[in-house]
Amino acid sequence: MLVLITYDVNTADAAGRRRLRQIARQCVNYGQRVQCSVFECLLDSAQCKLLQAKLLSIIDQEKDSLRFYYLGKQYENKIEHFGCKSSYLPEEPLIL
Amino acid sequence: MLVLITYDVNTADAAGRRRLRQIARQCVNYGQRVQCSVFECLLDSAQCKLLQAKLLSIIDQEKDSLRFYYLGKQYENKIEHFGCKSSYLPEEPLIL
Repeated sequence: MLVLITYDVNTADAAGRRRLRQIARQCVNYGQRVQCSVFECLLDSAQCKLLQAKLLSIIDQEKDSLRFYYLGKQYENKIEHFGCKSSYLPEEPLIL
Repeated sequence: MLVLITYDVNTADAAGRRRLRQIARQCVNYGQRVQCSVFECLLDSAQCKLLQAKLLSIIDQEKDSLRFYYLGKQYENKIEHFGCKSSYLPEEPLIL
């Protein structure tokens, strides 16, 4: 199934910026970065739980926001894109 | 239906920052801001087309990215949230 992962990480301090990098690094192992804080991941149920657990172990639940959208298996007609296609290098530091 | 709108706007210059504010201002008229660049909007087909046209008239297609995810009418079980719930004031300037 396609799982859309979106996040807002509070990057006011160095710890926040580190969390941001760690989250992106995890997500990129499982899917495609389509925007700065948006990943599309093709996951089965076990992978999804694993990724969720990893991300939850990284975020600061009082400062960061993490959302999962489950788009199912028939997702092709559920997505529309406009504008440029950004390409992000996951190994680069993410400064938002 | 629930439409998820996500965007990346190139804010390298003042024009970009203006586009970012304009996009947020449009989206907030139609739905709820759930993260910095993520809106959930309950729209019928006509509203969706209208909002899409408005947003497309704002973005710079060579610099910005705009994505729509159509989550349908049965969306309650398709969304999971973790961490803090941010509250954004749409009238505030958005500096990312």
